[in-house]
Amino acid sequence: MTEPLFDTLCVVGPGLIGSSVLRRLRAMPELVGTLIVTDRDRDVLARARALDLGDVVTDDLDAAVKDADCVMLCVPVGAIAPIASRILPIMKSGAILTDVGSTRRSIVDALTPHLRTDIAYVPAHPMAGTEHSGPDAGFATLFEDRWCLITPDRNAPEDAVTRIGAFWHAMGARTRRMDADHHDTICAMVSHLPHLIAFTICGTADTLAEDMRSEVLDFAASGFRDFTRIAASDPTMWRDIFLNNRDALLGVLDRFSQDAAAMADAIRSGDEETIVETIERGRRIRRSLLENRQA
Amino acid sequence: MTEPLFDTLCVVGPGLIGSSVLRRLRAMPELVGTLIVTDRDRDVLARARALDLGDVVTDDLDAAVKDADCVMLCVPVGAIAPIASRILPIMKSGAILTDVGSTRRSIVDALTPHLRTDIAYVPAHPMAGTEHSGPDAGFATLFEDRWCLITPDRNAPEDAVTRIGAFWHAMGARTRRMDADHHDTICAMVSHLPHLIAFTICGTADTLAEDMRSEVLDFAASGFRDFTRIAASDPTMWRDIFLNNRDALLGVLDRFSQDAAAMADAIRSGDEETIVETIERGRRIRRSLLENRQA
Ligand SMILES: NC(=O)c1ccc[n+]([C@@H]2O[C@H](COP(=O)([O-])OP(=O)(O)OC[C@H]3O[C@@H](n4cnc5c(N)ncnc54)[C@H](OP(=O)(O)O)[C@@H]3O)[C@@H](O)[C@H]2O)c1
Ligand SMILES: NC(=O)c1ccc[n+]([C@@H]2O[C@H](COP(=O)([O-])OP(=O)(O)OC[C@H]3O[C@@H](n4cnc5c(N)ncnc54)[C@H](OP(=O)(O)O)[C@@H]3O)[C@@H](O)[C@H]2O)c1
Repeated sequence: MTEPLFDTLCVVGPGLIGSSVLRRLRAMPELVGTLIVTDRDRDVLARARALDLGDVVTDDLDAAVKDADCVMLCVPVGAIAPIASRILPIMKSGAILTDVGSTRRSIVDALTPHLRTDIAYVPAHPMAGTEHSGPDAGFATLFEDRWCLITPDRNAPEDAVTRIGAFWHAMGARTRRMDADHHDTICAMVSHLPHLIAFTICGTADTLAEDMRSEVLDFAASGFRDFTRIAASDPTMWRDIFLNNRDALLGVLDRFSQDAAAMADAIRSGDEETIVETIERGRRIRRSLLENRQA
Repeated sequence: MTEPLFDTLCVVGPGLIGSSVLRRLRAMPELVGTLIVTDRDRDVLARARALDLGDVVTDDLDAAVKDADCVMLCVPVGAIAPIASRILPIMKSGAILTDVGSTRRSIVDALTPHLRTDIAYVPAHPMAGTEHSGPDAGFATLFEDRWCLITPDRNAPEDAVTRIGAFWHAMGARTRRMDADHHDTICAMVSHLPHLIAFTICGTADTLAEDMRSEVLDFAASGFRDFTRIAASDPTMWRDIFLNNRDALLGVLDRFSQDAAAMADAIRSGDEETIVETIERGRRIRRSLLENRQA
């Protein structure tokens, strides 16, 4: 790559995702001319400066975004539409607006009235993360070999979509393009439902009698532990995801609850066939994952 | 240790657990005098011979158990009581009967009428395993630093309980003594419920439309994958566990389902406080696990 993808890129919210993007960009100086970093939180900005995450680090959002060729919002899902609608009127004509939010439909609905024909809206959700957050949690290889789901607004010019794709390839990711609703259903199943279940089962364990709870912790290695890693994730982020992907999430949760109730019935009535069939399905899925090299 | 713990030990069912015990014993020849291995399956016995798991490898169950000082049943939960009630009448007076079954109450209830006053029944459940099974899946270090839950029959002499404890310490495990019902409730929460949920969520994903299912596999790394490792486990073993720990399992499943329904309500009604509270609980449990060095 000889020409930079963007002369000026502004990252709003240098947390886990934002700082990981910035760290990688720092290691590939040819990709972007000037890197601007902004946040509402002075402590976050102080860390961004100490970690040398950008050429300009400022708490002045308007100044940060107004000359950027690309503005990338890396804030919690609930903050994306409010910030986007505030900065859209002052963004440069021809610029690209993108965000890394984990849900789509509710953001698109909130943003659509504010979109401008001369600014391409091309959100891209990197399917990568850890249970940690903040500028110190990021690392340059976070996106390597992970998927990034690109869900462009239907009025976004192809050139802008191509640039965002190239950007995420440079981050090390593989990209897939899809529409907002499909994105939300897939993510409800692969990510939001598993997280909801993980939080819930930890809550269930937490309501046990005191003595039993301590034994649950002692003997967690027998299965329970596998559910707790993802349950350590950030509350604000997940509150926003659950509320913003409500319909798709409640849809898969309802299916899951019915399946769990059917399994309970099978156990209650000693229906061996149904039990074995359900277990066999789990094995099949696991096998497919291994073949897919995703496990 | 100068004197062997048992002059003759017979392992019935050299699968994952049985062959792991045998492998470790082979590496500690001072622990047991003669090792007898038996199974109903000739292929399993052929592997046991090829792997040199015992001094005597035979398909003759009666001959295998009759002179043993300790008989250890390492067969699926549903096979434990039938085999135990068959061999109890021919076992040597003063011998110890043990099993490694993952559930207790239903086995104890089925066995109690067959127990003899001159044979100690001291089951011990090692909380260790993998998603693989059979004689080739075992390894000598499987039990290291894992818990083994000892649930002696109330008529078992202390000396027998002490020996079984010493045996599992030699396997590398830590031991905890408890009664059958407490065992079943704890295991329902830390192991059986997580497995049931893992099987169920894989089943839910499996019922999605064809195209979506393939995307679930592609994007599994976002949380779903964490649930599939334990879902790869053996169907016979888990069918038996679910059916034999029915009451305790349905009890925790019911609690969990209520908690999941409450979370769904909170999401539906936008009750941020309840959502954040539930997520915070997950983090707290995870933190306790990390402090407990179990994560
Ligand atoms: N973590 C993951 O696994 C993951 C994966 C893919 C996508 N995502 C998405 O990526 C986005 C960022 O997630 P993250 O994990 O990087 O979160 P994070 O580490 O908590 O970073 C979020 C950043 O945004 C700032 N912020 C929060 N609210 C803000 C507001 N109203 N205005 C301005 N700045 C604000 C935060 O600073 P202060 O809160 O201190 O102000 C922080 O610097 C979210 O939309 C999330 O859904 C996350
Ligand atoms: N795997 C774990 O995570 C784990 C952990 C702790 C405790 N346990 C308990 O340990 C026991 C064994 O589990 P495992 O994982 O070692 O299973 P495994 O690898 O499948 O081994 C079971 C062995 O028992 C034999 N067997 C099965 N049914 C039998 C019958 N009716 N009569 C005689 N032999 C029979 C099997 O051979 P054939 O089927 O070929 O006859 C096989 O050799 C189970 O009670 C299980 O609940 C398992």
